[in-house]
Amino acid sequence: MAVELLAPLQPAAASTQPMHRQLYEHLRQAILSGRLRPGERLPSTRQVAARLRLARNTVARAYEDLASEGYLEGRVGSGTYVPRALPAELLQPAPPAEPQPPAAPRWRLSAWAERALSLSPLVAAGPDATAAYDFTPGQPDWDAFPRALWRRLLGRAWLRGDLGRSGDPAGYRPLREALARHLAASRGVVCTADQVVVVNGTQQTIDLVGRLWLDPGQPIALESPGYPGARRAFEAYGAETVALAVDAEGARLDRLERREDVRLVYVTPSHQYPTGAVLSLERRLRLLDWAERSGALVLEDDYDSELRFAGRPLASLQGLDRGGRVIYLGTFSSVLLPPLRLGYAVLPPDLVGPFVRAKSFADWQTATAEQQALAEMLRQGHFARHLRRMRRLYQARREALLQGLARHLSGLATWRDSGAGLHIMLALRPGLDEAEAAARVAAAGVRVGQAGPCWIGPPDYAGLLLGYTALPPQRMDAGLRALAEALADT
Amino acid sequence: MAVELLAPLQPAAASTQPMHRQLYEHLRQAILSGRLRPGERLPSTRQVAARLRLARNTVARAYEDLASEGYLEGRVGSGTYVPRALPAELLQPAPPAEPQPPAAPRWRLSAWAERALSLSPLVAAGPDATAAYDFTPGQPDWDAFPRALWRRLLGRAWLRGDLGRSGDPAGYRPLREALARHLAASRGVVCTADQVVVVNGTQQTIDLVGRLWLDPGQPIALESPGYPGARRAFEAYGAETVALAVDAEGARLDRLERREDVRLVYVTPSHQYPTGAVLSLERRLRLLDWAERSGALVLEDDYDSELRFAGRPLASLQGLDRGGRVIYLGTFSSVLLPPLRLGYAVLPPDLVGPFVRAKSFADWQTATAEQQALAEMLRQGHFARHLRRMRRLYQARREALLQGLARHLSGLATWRDSGAGLHIMLALRPGLDEAEAAARVAAAGVRVGQAGPCWIGPPDYAGLLLGYTALPPQRMDAGLRALAEALADT
Repeated sequence: MAVELLAPLQPAAASTQPMHRQLYEHLRQAILSGRLRPGERLPSTRQVAARLRLARNTVARAYEDLASEGYLEGRVGSGTYVPRALPAELLQPAPPAEPQPPAAPRWRLSAWAERALSLSPLVAAGPDATAAYDFTPGQPDWDAFPRALWRRLLGRAWLRGDLGRSGDPAGYRPLREALARHLAASRGVVCTADQVVVVNGTQQTIDLVGRLWLDPGQPIALESPGYPGARRAFEAYGAETVALAVDAEGARLDRLERREDVRLVYVTPSHQYPTGAVLSLERRLRLLDWAERSGALVLEDDYDSELRFAGRPLASLQGLDRGGRVIYLGTFSSVLLPPLRLGYAVLPPDLVGPFVRAKSFADWQTATAEQQALAEMLRQGHFARHLRRMRRLYQARREALLQGLARHLSGLATWRDSGAGLHIMLALRPGLDEAEAAARVAAAGVRVGQAGPCWIGPPDYAGLLLGYTALPPQRMDAGLRALAEALADT
Repeated sequence: MAVELLAPLQPAAASTQPMHRQLYEHLRQAILSGRLRPGERLPSTRQVAARLRLARNTVARAYEDLASEGYLEGRVGSGTYVPRALPAELLQPAPPAEPQPPAAPRWRLSAWAERALSLSPLVAAGPDATAAYDFTPGQPDWDAFPRALWRRLLGRAWLRGDLGRSGDPAGYRPLREALARHLAASRGVVCTADQVVVVNGTQQTIDLVGRLWLDPGQPIALESPGYPGARRAFEAYGAETVALAVDAEGARLDRLERREDVRLVYVTPSHQYPTGAVLSLERRLRLLDWAERSGALVLEDDYDSELRFAGRPLASLQGLDRGGRVIYLGTFSSVLLPPLRLGYAVLPPDLVGPFVRAKSFADWQTATAEQQALAEMLRQGHFARHLRRMRRLYQARREALLQGLARHLSGLATWRDSGAGLHIMLALRPGLDEAEAAARVAAAGVRVGQAGPCWIGPPDYAGLLLGYTALPPQRMDAGLRALAEALADT
């Protein structure tokens, strides 16, 4: 070995790396870059130690680490070598970094990837600290989360639970049982615990259903306007979307009933996203009848209907389904927190197996301790109490919002109060442009959502989405006044 | 309305349902089954209350709930009716349950679903309380998990953290930074925090890579024997598997180097699953060179290599990769717990965007508080201490296992001690049948894993997998004696 290779190596006392690792890395790079060639002999540890003024043990340790990774080998009675078997032609200095020609893609990805990357990304609904009035929809009142209670329940699961050692991709059995009871009582869902599968939130259910149902070109019916997170997941699978218009009775079924090739329908019957319409009983019956006749699946996303303020929450579509054609999906994002990532699907008995198979292939199972804590929260009645508290809290904000809307927005927009959910959709007065309105509103320090991405194809009208959960009631009126002033200037 | 419809309704004091819900349900079923027809008039709340000896409020509440769901409507000055608009033809008694003709499938599922359902399910590696000696591989020592520490860190995240309100599908930023530092120091991974993406464990990384890379018919190279969870996930996407034989230097590359159509290779270089072979430096260099030349991606699954007992853990393949061709994937399942569902992928910079897109479409993001707790565990040095403790704990068991194997199994099987990992693979003496051996062993109260599912195609030899993490060292010898006796009888 050319001992001069060691010359650039100065023991760097300031380095966070111990000296034996610095020497290891120096020699490793010398071998990888071809400065030390296969077959070349290294100086003895004694020679190197003397030359670099290091303890001999330090050098020996570097040599051992290199040997254990195959960079060096000892020959009895002869010393230490770079192994002859290493492919000399692959040991080269790193090529100088050259800009890639932009026309040559480095990877060929799947058709799914090409589609998914061509779609708009899903956007997080986090709070906007820079806005004076934050009406961003899709987020809870973060301060209302019962931190101490959840910490206690979860802490108990971690301290005394079984840690999930009997893990089941379908979910923690006592949570599935508690959910079946809770959903029967509060949502009229008719199911056994065997039909309940725990997932990481609504998006996972939608994705797993897409993967089980959709091949490229497969038609699927969605509400328009509707939930863009569902549409994008389905479009990534290559689905061809059939738009169901939405009126005061929820999704219209006439286009659906004229088709026989649609095998999957995604609807939000209890509180249509984003308009807030409630699917009428007549349409519920017709939708189930159509599904039965055409062998289709209905995906009922019941995303926030536990938060109903006027009257009792409407019973689920699933509870009306006699033919086993509905997958009901729910989430704890609205009542607890989105980043908890806990949701559930209630499936017809013959679909539990395929769905659990898809779940296990996707990520094996949802984390267990959180399921254990949630099961206790439901079982001990904490969840029902928390839900009542959230209903009171949000109802006060909702009333403040509706009063402020009536006071400030009546000439500028119309809206529907369906008595449920965590946002209101404003249909802007004809002539108002949505993007321009949103920009002016933002400039006035008011953050709102836009309805544009909810439409399949060109929108019928411009719309803004106002979440009311993040803003205290006493600030609602001023926020809506600022919103109205910005809109009036448009 | 035919008042006799109310006759079967007996106020059931024993029911858990309040009386107004019993009445609601009774009338709802009467309407859904067509006993109360659209257009039919209901008796007044006063009449029903008198007839059933209920408070009038109780009846009024049931009527209101039915009206809010569209089952009833009031006409001014005229009373309460079943709406005429309800489709009478869909309101029918439930058909008697008939056995479905088995030949008619109720659903047409996707090609992915058809493939996934034709594959063997993934099997959970839980402890087997019924076995006298449990050598089930793939599970940790459940009792070694630092419950109190984890509860404290996680409790703090829930009590004082931001609850994940600034959620990012790529993961919690401080955890990504802590992981980049940790992996550089312990695994020689060369990356920035931007390249680290947090997922729900290894299976999710494998699935997301499959979805980004694979279309039906796409060839993919896998080790044989190899990890069945990866193979099944890829086969569900329709991949055509190219088997790479495994010898003492890890995966053989000759079949790979003869092909130009393979764009994805899955390997376990640090501790080949299940044989334990370490991929030699020469093959690492050749594999990276091949990937660069053929535009392929190498998926490096470093599933348990932090648990290395002889010498320093080998550096990762990723750290040798100059062309940005390797995705490195790791998990906290081995060192902490599988049901924690926390893993990570380290991606070439140009693949971070597509991977995060796939993650967000799949389930939006991984739960945040657990990421916050883990970031603190790494940052405060608790993780490094826990890792040292686990190494000591498992090393003692490993030594007991190897001693017991030498004592009892030497005529019956061969094995490789690569100084790493949490299991040993026994290659059974020629002539021994794997299924028969496993059955005899199980009958003797010894639970082991079978290597059969790890092979692509017919196995070259029969093999058993022995995990040694669940069994205390003092019981190891007796367990292996029982194993040897059962094998000797085969």
